[in-house]
Amino acid sequence: MTDTSPIDNQHAHEDVSNGLWYHERHEGELELGLHVTRVLHSEKSEFQRLDVFETSGFGRLMTLDGLVMVTERDEFVYHEMIAHVPLLAHPQPERVLIIGGGDGGTLREVLRHKCVKEAVLCEIDGAVVEAARRFFPNLSEAMDDKRAKVQICDGVDFVQKSDAGQFDVVIVDSTDPIGPGVGLFSASFYAGVKRVLKEDGIVVAQCESPWQKNVNFQKVYGNLNEVSDAVYAMVGSIPTYPLGFWSWGVATRKHDPRTIADSSRLEAVIRSSRYYNEEIHRAAFALPNFFKRSLEGVAKNAG
Amino acid sequence: MTDTSPIDNQHAHEDVSNGLWYHERHEGELELGLHVTRVLHSEKSEFQRLDVFETSGFGRLMTLDGLVMVTERDEFVYHEMIAHVPLLAHPQPERVLIIGGGDGGTLREVLRHKCVKEAVLCEIDGAVVEAARRFFPNLSEAMDDKRAKVQICDGVDFVQKSDAGQFDVVIVDSTDPIGPGVGLFSASFYAGVKRVLKEDGIVVAQCESPWQKNVNFQKVYGNLNEVSDAVYAMVGSIPTYPLGFWSWGVATRKHDPRTIADSSRLEAVIRSSRYYNEEIHRAAFALPNFFKRSLEGVAKNAG
Repeated sequence: MTDTSPIDNQHAHEDVSNGLWYHERHEGELELGLHVTRVLHSEKSEFQRLDVFETSGFGRLMTLDGLVMVTERDEFVYHEMIAHVPLLAHPQPERVLIIGGGDGGTLREVLRHKCVKEAVLCEIDGAVVEAARRFFPNLSEAMDDKRAKVQICDGVDFVQKSDAGQFDVVIVDSTDPIGPGVGLFSASFYAGVKRVLKEDGIVVAQCESPWQKNVNFQKVYGNLNEVSDAVYAMVGSIPTYPLGFWSWGVATRKHDPRTIADSSRLEAVIRSSRYYNEEIHRAAFALPNFFKRSLEGVAKNAG
Repeated sequence: MTDTSPIDNQHAHEDVSNGLWYHERHEGELELGLHVTRVLHSEKSEFQRLDVFETSGFGRLMTLDGLVMVTERDEFVYHEMIAHVPLLAHPQPERVLIIGGGDGGTLREVLRHKCVKEAVLCEIDGAVVEAARRFFPNLSEAMDDKRAKVQICDGVDFVQKSDAGQFDVVIVDSTDPIGPGVGLFSASFYAGVKRVLKEDGIVVAQCESPWQKNVNFQKVYGNLNEVSDAVYAMVGSIPTYPLGFWSWGVATRKHDPRTIADSSRLEAVIRSSRYYNEEIHRAAFALPNFFKRSLEGVAKNAG
């Protein structure tokens, strides 16, 4: 476990030619590189490899098993979208469950909604929570909110064993479908999610990049059909995620996720948001033809 | 001038570890890499360096001065958006001017509109047109359409010297604001664009990535104010352009670019499109808060 590795000199921010780059390859064809000025932390947790870097252009960066999880510069897109769309589509969300999301960013956005009385965060890897608390205070600060209940536990177990029908919104803030995140890409997990969801509940899950070739979107979005026949896809721009464009699936048992159900919370949310606003909420459900075609039969907005 | 450089072996498509990657750095902080299986062409034209690569994941790639101009896999987003939004917002576009766009992709989409009687393409660098004809037949084929008039000329000169008030739509399909494209980022060029535009004309221009830090969007979009006070921004996802997210500015003297003026052309356009559709047309004008804030005072949809 490395605490701070001063492999760079103090001029790093002016001179970006020190040669240290984080590189991530997608499908063997495309590479994302971020210039690194300092390695802050590296460890092999019980579940995965975890690294924290200081970058010259994107602030701090956390990677799990060599994949970008979060950068300080663009994390807000992912966290605002995965939280505000379902919470504003629900008229009165009081109990929210986050599966994964150990960095705290989703929790931070969920707790901006004053009506939320309890937000349970269920993260499998305690090392992610510890690293977030130490290196990403802007993400993890919400964990100290009285309404937050942070648990280190397996999300698959949690939805099978805790009380049924208790959550208004369930957010599946998983890693990619490798390593400890694999279980969160199974139909049986979603049967459990349905179990803990209230009758009029909403589920949202990160569903990878529409541009990726080696993803079976029928299967990824199809999992959400365990919860409801009404599944919608939404999209947004995230520069440090594969191919710069991300998708989330929303399964709903009553409320239309494209419609804002409680506009009294809207103004405060928009004021604190750097990506989300009312127009973006609606626009996120407009899908490019190539993505619509790959979702035919599983998503309502792919008609 | 290299014709074909067989630096790779025949197994390149199976084995992507041959080590040849095209890398592009943005603002010294971020790198895009594309795996190259073959260098097809390299030259120094009168105006710029021009390379054509075969990539393993994105088909053929053309770069100018070391910047991605077009890949076969994702070119459709840029070309559909820059053409169909203004042409469908106009009730009857008959004469269209394209400044730049020497690869032919924008021309191809413009000519899908049967009402267009003439499309003038004014590209400064004949080498781009030649390379497109030779290596990108799917882009350049539209140059053989009887309605296409391809000219090798300076766009700045063209809008100053040709007849006034002759075009329904002007499309500024420029490179980045370096090299031969610099003149196309000036207010005086846009005064010329206004000159050749009809009274109810629409102008659209590529306006760089909303995520770029070193771009003065007030200035880039402000140029369009030479044409009209009514300037709108629109956005779309392009994986191989800097930060994966692109913007275009639309200046209009009568028609609202967010509204489809002639839906009789819509169905055929959507059928041939891989990105554009009716929902995408409207959604493209929904801007993330961070971008809206950087456009305050210059774009109508940044209110």
